[in-house]
Amino acid sequence: MSEYKLVRKQNRHEKTMVRVKECCIGDGDLTVIAGPCAVEEEEMTFELARALKHMGVHILRGGVFKPRTSPYSFQGLGWNGLEILAAAGQNAGLPVITEVTEAGDVEKVSRYADILQVGSRNMQNFGLLKEMGRSGRPVLLKRGFSATLEEWLLAAEYIMSAGNNQVILCERGIRTFENYTRNTFDINAIPALKRLTHLPVLADPSHGTGRRELVEPVALAAVAAGADGIMVEVHPQPENALSDGFQSLRPHELAPLINRARAVRDALHTGCVAR
Amino acid sequence: MSEYKLVRKQNRHEKTMVRVKECCIGDGDLTVIAGPCAVEEEEMTFELARALKHMGVHILRGGVFKPRTSPYSFQGLGWNGLEILAAAGQNAGLPVITEVTEAGDVEKVSRYADILQVGSRNMQNFGLLKEMGRSGRPVLLKRGFSATLEEWLLAAEYIMSAGNNQVILCERGIRTFENYTRNTFDINAIPALKRLTHLPVLADPSHGTGRRELVEPVALAAVAAGADGIMVEVHPQPENALSDGFQSLRPHELAPLINRARAVRDALHTGCVAR
Amino acid sequence: MSEYKLVRKQNRHEKTMVRVKECCIGDGDLTVIAGPCAVEEEEMTFELARALKHMGVHILRGGVFKPRTSPYSFQGLGWNGLEILAAAGQNAGLPVITEVTEAGDVEKVSRYADILQVGSRNMQNFGLLKEMGRSGRPVLLKRGFSATLEEWLLAAEYIMSAGNNQVILCERGIRTFENYTRNTFDINAIPALKRLTHLPVLADPSHGTGRRELVEPVALAAVAAGADGIMVEVHPQPENALSDGFQSLRPHELAPLINRARAVRDALHTGCVAR
Amino acid sequence: MSEYKLVRKQNRHEKTMVRVKECCIGDGDLTVIAGPCAVEEEEMTFELARALKHMGVHILRGGVFKPRTSPYSFQGLGWNGLEILAAAGQNAGLPVITEVTEAGDVEKVSRYADILQVGSRNMQNFGLLKEMGRSGRPVLLKRGFSATLEEWLLAAEYIMSAGNNQVILCERGIRTFENYTRNTFDINAIPALKRLTHLPVLADPSHGTGRRELVEPVALAAVAAGADGIMVEVHPQPENALSDGFQSLRPHELAPLINRARAVRDALHTGCVAR
Repeated sequence: MSEYKLVRKQNRHEKTMVRVKECCIGDGDLTVIAGPCAVEEEEMTFELARALKHMGVHILRGGVFKPRTSPYSFQGLGWNGLEILAAAGQNAGLPVITEVTEAGDVEKVSRYADILQVGSRNMQNFGLLKEMGRSGRPVLLKRGFSATLEEWLLAAEYIMSAGNNQVILCERGIRTFENYTRNTFDINAIPALKRLTHLPVLADPSHGTGRRELVEPVALAAVAAGADGIMVEVHPQPENALSDGFQSLRPHELAPLINRARAVRDALHTGCVAR
Repeated sequence: MSEYKLVRKQNRHEKTMVRVKECCIGDGDLTVIAGPCAVEEEEMTFELARALKHMGVHILRGGVFKPRTSPYSFQGLGWNGLEILAAAGQNAGLPVITEVTEAGDVEKVSRYADILQVGSRNMQNFGLLKEMGRSGRPVLLKRGFSATLEEWLLAAEYIMSAGNNQVILCERGIRTFENYTRNTFDINAIPALKRLTHLPVLADPSHGTGRRELVEPVALAAVAAGADGIMVEVHPQPENALSDGFQSLRPHELAPLINRARAVRDALHTGCVAR
Repeated sequence: MSEYKLVRKQNRHEKTMVRVKECCIGDGDLTVIAGPCAVEEEEMTFELARALKHMGVHILRGGVFKPRTSPYSFQGLGWNGLEILAAAGQNAGLPVITEVTEAGDVEKVSRYADILQVGSRNMQNFGLLKEMGRSGRPVLLKRGFSATLEEWLLAAEYIMSAGNNQVILCERGIRTFENYTRNTFDINAIPALKRLTHLPVLADPSHGTGRRELVEPVALAAVAAGADGIMVEVHPQPENALSDGFQSLRPHELAPLINRARAVRDALHTGCVAR
Repeated sequence: MSEYKLVRKQNRHEKTMVRVKECCIGDGDLTVIAGPCAVEEEEMTFELARALKHMGVHILRGGVFKPRTSPYSFQGLGWNGLEILAAAGQNAGLPVITEVTEAGDVEKVSRYADILQVGSRNMQNFGLLKEMGRSGRPVLLKRGFSATLEEWLLAAEYIMSAGNNQVILCERGIRTFENYTRNTFDINAIPALKRLTHLPVLADPSHGTGRRELVEPVALAAVAAGADGIMVEVHPQPENALSDGFQSLRPHELAPLINRARAVRDALHTGCVAR
């Protein structure tokens, strides 16, 4: 594919590593991002952040501008939520990531967040991508729920060609005929991307399945397939969450998941000199 | 679906008609929108506009901000292109429609264009939708290429709940496993929408098929299924078009299409007192 | 596509016409096939057949071996049902079509039915296709619900290469992410096939939509797109049907549909010397 | 889902284990099935079988009745191929599995093969399923490439309700819009099935990806997600294979895959008392 220039693995000597405070995505260790779908109360967010830090989570996630299908659904706490998220991260010693939905917000959000996220619905919002390219912040680019790998990589190319090399890809499931799960996590995408691009690749099994009981096995699968990390929704009381509760883990479910994910990661080195 | 409020057919006494200069979309007559995928040279655009007017086309379309998959593809002429489009429309006596891709551009584009288009990739760009809702201009909302009918109608609800009732829906094909055609035109969507909402429904067989030779039969199908109008890409020299040439009709192919589309429309009244 | 030999339009001088008693599919007139999803009671079937004949229906359809997703659903009346169907057709003066699901049944069913149907789930049941090729009976080949056009045409090639030229293709909707409708009727397939093959092409809007209120508009659309005929499920009491009642028309809804379908067909000749 | 009876996890006290000679599918160990897509020459098959046995493969696979999209493609060696496969298995000390495509062949194939396979295209060939149910042999049921989990489980229900409890499910990828890979391996299906049914669940990463370089990572992913085993295409000279060479591993690529798969399997027990 001749259109791949900056994203292309063969055009760069080494894998891209994205450094965020003390953590480094793509350095061979498994990165864990966790937090609530949407930032809600301040106290709850602070407590959750400390608990996550304690479990070995590297980055705190939390949505404050929520792109919702219906105009009548909870739309996130906005700037107020962003202040809560940033403060909770600082208090717990965790960098934070949040989604930006409008080009005009990129600069201001950059003052609070360590990583900017492009959500699935905005993967081809090219104005937003270009602004992300000028932000100077690492960008986590989620796959559009019906985007091909080619379209996704070219969306990353938009960000990079605007001057930003700090791009992280995140698979979060695609839309298919299957309706038992909310989306179909495209496990093939993980090793395919590792062969096509030097960018780090994360997995979001929460959106990729839409069902709490499937999050752990699919997270482990993504790690086994070569993902550089996972992003998981965690909520202290999923049954009361304002958004996506049915796919959020409870905090105590995360620690064993992380242990097993690391064990799977280690197992990949079995029997191989160079992978 | 309790979330449908303003779009819902049962909540309004009559069908919505969108009036644009002398033309009225949704009044029972067939509306024809035509023009190039992207506005290119001034002279060519003027000539084409006059030819289209002569054939009975009601509205001139032309893209100036082109959302392209690759950052290295032609991105449209921008504001300069918009001036050409507006002038060509005025010269030929045709209102014009163009796509807006960023919320920040809505106000300025509104000064030139009679109808604002939301493209497929931006169907869930909620910031753009809300700005469209405040624009005071009629909005043509294309279906996202993997959006369900429910998501599409709720996107229209975003525009309407921001204060704009002048919304037109336009089916343009969805993404499926079939690869002989660029997209699969969802013909079921036309009559389904006519039963769910009072808004007018148009069809774009150019993107819906991606192949010139299929444009006419699918246009006629959409009319037979109850579409209020069609939007067709036309280019004087498709083989030299800067974008989408393989799916653009030549001008002389449009006149017979319009004749047959009207004949099909008339045929629908056969054998029925009230439809 | 070099694999297309016998099905390929360019390899044959004229369109294939399939003659069944007094009716001829593919001769330019619109063929109408109608009847219940599954044959049920004898008296009801006889009455329905006569009513359909009276409306101008050409061929009576009725399932007796029903391939059902669950082993616990009604599986059809079997051979007894086939006798009822054949007798009802004879009584009303209509040829009959029914689905065959096993290669071993082809010969015996051929003694009762004028056309043999290959259902969507069996489109790539190659043993059945080959046996159909040896049957000497016209075969209506439904598209698999996730088959590409290429796979479908090659399935027809299986039947033809086994010695049977009397093949009719029938589009019946494909599986997509959309769940408002049972399937997505692929309208693009109609004109695409008319350009790729000399075989006649029918449309089944009952399965293609799965909703009674969408059957007529999609039937008209298929005719406008160039279909040689339509196949429609009709049941005297859809609410009591043993199978597919929600997508079956009532008998009195069919007559106006046929009138409008013919009017649409006639309208296609408007303004064109040669199409 | 009330239609699930015999397949339903909650309706049986323990997981189903399918015993085939010395190997047992579903007993907690990882089962490895490997072999060529299609059986070709006798000597090559014997050699390959011995090599596979040496690597720790449990069951030899090989197609002899190949359901091919085109009637002009290689259709398999038929009964002669089956004799070669059975002899090669016996020589190497491996049970064998092969696909049966016609109900009429089930009994005869049962005399040669230890496990009967239902291929993706025949998942809803209900006559074949019922005959499989009467065969007395273990049956490996592949998922239809566009089947929902519900349809798949009900296909298994057809086999079980005909009297055969020895059913193994095998995920092999579904059809989506993505075309970089041949299919999209549905990783979600593995843990979903483990929660819905007591039947063992295998993974076929060869068809699930269609690209040799993706087979190992997706195999490991399936194991991490809880699969009871894997089925992998192996050919001594993939570039000369008569079928599916582009997705076949070379024999020397299989041994490290098996080692790593076992290591991943072991890693799953980390940090958990009961999973």
